Amino acid sequence: MAQQTRPARGMRDFLPEDVRRRDYVIGVITSVYERYGFEPLETPALENIETLTGKYGEEGNKLIFKVLRRGEHESSGETDLALRYDLTVPLARVVAEHRGKLPKFFKRYQIQPVWRADRPARGRFREFYQCDVDAIGSTSPVVEAEMLAAVSQVLQRLGFTDFTIQLNHRALLTALLNAAGIDATRHATALVAIDKLDKIGRDGVRDDMVARGSSAESATVCLDAFESPDAFDRLVAQEEGGAAARQNIAQILELADAGPARGHVTLTPRLARGLSYYTGAIMEVAVPDLAGSLGGGGRYDGLIGMFCGEEIPACGFSLGLERILVVMTERAMFPEGVASAAADVMMTQFEGEPIDDTLALARELRDAGLRVDVYPDADKLGKQFKYAAARGVKFVIVAGADERARGEVTLKNLVTGEQTAVPRGRVVAAFRPNVSDS
Amino acid sequence: MAQQTRPARGMRDFLPEDVRRRDYVIGVITSVYERYGFEPLETPALENIETLTGKYGEEGNKLIFKVLRRGEHESSGETDLALRYDLTVPLARVVAEHRGKLPKFFKRYQIQPVWRADRPARGRFREFYQCDVDAIGSTSPVVEAEMLAAVSQVLQRLGFTDFTIQLNHRALLTALLNAAGIDATRHATALVAIDKLDKIGRDGVRDDMVARGSSAESATVCLDAFESPDAFDRLVAQEEGGAAARQNIAQILELADAGPARGHVTLTPRLARGLSYYTGAIMEVAVPDLAGSLGGGGRYDGLIGMFCGEEIPACGFSLGLERILVVMTERAMFPEGVASAAADVMMTQFEGEPIDDTLALARELRDAGLRVDVYPDADKLGKQFKYAAARGVKFVIVAGADERARGEVTLKNLVTGEQTAVPRGRVVAAFRPNVSDS
Repeated sequence: MAQQTRPARGMRDFLPEDVRRRDYVIGVITSVYERYGFEPLETPALENIETLTGKYGEEGNKLIFKVLRRGEHESSGETDLALRYDLTVPLARVVAEHRGKLPKFFKRYQIQPVWRADRPARGRFREFYQCDVDAIGSTSPVVEAEMLAAVSQVLQRLGFTDFTIQLNHRALLTALLNAAGIDATRHATALVAIDKLDKIGRDGVRDDMVARGSSAESATVCLDAFESPDAFDRLVAQEEGGAAARQNIAQILELADAGPARGHVTLTPRLARGLSYYTGAIMEVAVPDLAGSLGGGGRYDGLIGMFCGEEIPACGFSLGLERILVVMTERAMFPEGVASAAADVMMTQFEGEPIDDTLALARELRDAGLRVDVYPDADKLGKQFKYAAARGVKFVIVAGADERARGEVTLKNLVTGEQTAVPRGRVVAAFRPNVSDS
Repeated sequence: MAQQTRPARGMRDFLPEDVRRRDYVIGVITSVYERYGFEPLETPALENIETLTGKYGEEGNKLIFKVLRRGEHESSGETDLALRYDLTVPLARVVAEHRGKLPKFFKRYQIQPVWRADRPARGRFREFYQCDVDAIGSTSPVVEAEMLAAVSQVLQRLGFTDFTIQLNHRALLTALLNAAGIDATRHATALVAIDKLDKIGRDGVRDDMVARGSSAESATVCLDAFESPDAFDRLVAQEEGGAAARQNIAQILELADAGPARGHVTLTPRLARGLSYYTGAIMEVAVPDLAGSLGGGGRYDGLIGMFCGEEIPACGFSLGLERILVVMTERAMFPEGVASAAADVMMTQFEGEPIDDTLALARELRDAGLRVDVYPDADKLGKQFKYAAARGVKFVIVAGADERARGEVTLKNLVTGEQTAVPRGRVVAAFRPNVSDS
């Protein structure tokens, strides 16, 4: 009996055109990050389960894919491994493990899939790629500014002009919550509520904050401050840490203004970011026609310490490949030729004709940099032409008995219909303008 | 308390130099496969568990990483997903699922990790990359010949000259086993024994075959035939299917001779290949200084039918990235510059000097294609130089108060020690010979 052939729930097969589009975006991201001095890092898909648990909050914990122990332990139902849930926790582990080998200021990018057992929805998958940059080892605002510049340049090179980057600081939010009289023990849950402001609105957040133990008055003070930058500034300035955080944000904004982020970054008091490990600046990038963000990040000076016992400052930004692809597809932003045809040339085959000469010519064309397909069976010529045309292959080469007798091949352009007799020794030269140097 | 920071057992972190070496090899493989008209495909890391079970034999089944069901089912200890074990079974599923969208002759390459809970050993990991090419839809010997050519060209472009490709045919082995009087029901286990000939030797295989129910006489007939090509040819020629298989192999060898595989391929009667799904030609590539193979493959005309109910011919070859890397590392085969420094230039920073001008110059250099790092803190200049040198960065730019006053920057070559004053407006031009076009 035939088996189920669909991919698992929330997962996707990427056919050649999909892979080429994804690789194009990944190529742009990689190239920009390299120019900013970030280096590539890769970590295993599977981590020891205790590396991941307790890092993503209660909700996150439920979404981790856990792997059953093997062999004699399989029947116990116990798990010992888990699939990577993000790229930040593995980075923290790597920095702690390989500190001796890594430079003091380790700047890495990492573009790999992560897995979350979320309910699948439009643009939300259970396997998806994160494209992360992180800079370890410095508390300088240059780090945040460079990150904002790199992310901006990625988006600009992909063709985005209308993105906005919201910037805020965890210490400003702490100062605001203090000023509003919310007890420190309730800050984390208050931030989770505030993080949903764009989704559930002002009343929703207020109700949520009250349900989580803040007073209605305190919640109102916060929500009012999000609507008035002046009120926000006034409230945070009088609290401990507020002035320093405001100063840090001012420096980041000034430095970001010297680069490609200029005009895209705004201080946004209501930006909270869900994750609990942020300690300083937080950032999120969005475009008008996509609900949610294209990516986000921030400073997390405490996380690596959980792995190595010593506090090491760090700041990172993660772009969501799938979300970028959704917007680029809807806006038709891919350059022509990205999802190119499978081959530049197809060699035909005739029943009874020597194939080794065909393969030898294919080899010459390949050595010249062309992508060459060889039709594998000696079907009727019309059928072979139709196959090449359907696949978008532009040129077809025919070398039947007549052509061979004359020491020629026939080169047919399937787009124009033009057919040329080319001496066997000059076929590669005939393609010269199409030959790439790669 | 600090947490465990090692990667999970049998898994590895790839630091920047490792990633760059891996990416170099993957780049060569991709580029050659593209020139042979293969197209990229990617499938999810997780498959429904029933897609994988029953495809890899009893031993294989034990090595599959299985994922626990989630939510309310978690406590049941049941599993519903499993990690990709190879790239061939997912391909068969994809071909069955997407047949309407794929060309009749679907040629794909796929370079992705697979996971096997094998006992870790030198060069054997629990997460490793397979680099597969497969051609679906044709029984023509051109398919095998093109595959041998593509694999040979990959190895040649990586710098291998001493590889050998063993070629055999499952129908020749069937004919031999029949001629030796081994019952058809014992063929599969006999092949598993024969596959170990290089590892356990002639006596070991004979004992194993006898233990699995073949007679000692039959086993000896087979083992003798492996040492005498003439005896092998004589025995198989008289059996059903033997002559046709011999003819098929002769065609493949002749066609392979027209391309880069010339001189590397030899008919090897003892080559058996472990997997049960092969139906025609089988192949394996090796180099003298590595036990085991760099990769292998063959024709499997029945596997896709398990998913779509209709027999669809297919042939594939898989190169093992880790094994290629092991040999290339031992032989020092990587071209210079593959594991390059993190950056071409590093910008220094001074306490109290404006950083925005430094960032603006970094931007100009990046726009010109250079990889530019910015030292994040205003440490002592000597410390900044030392850091750049330790990381292999060749050029450092200093723009202190004196330089700024003269409208210049100092460009220092850390390799030669040479120091040049360059007008601020001519810095990019000073790098022109080093500027890449990428």
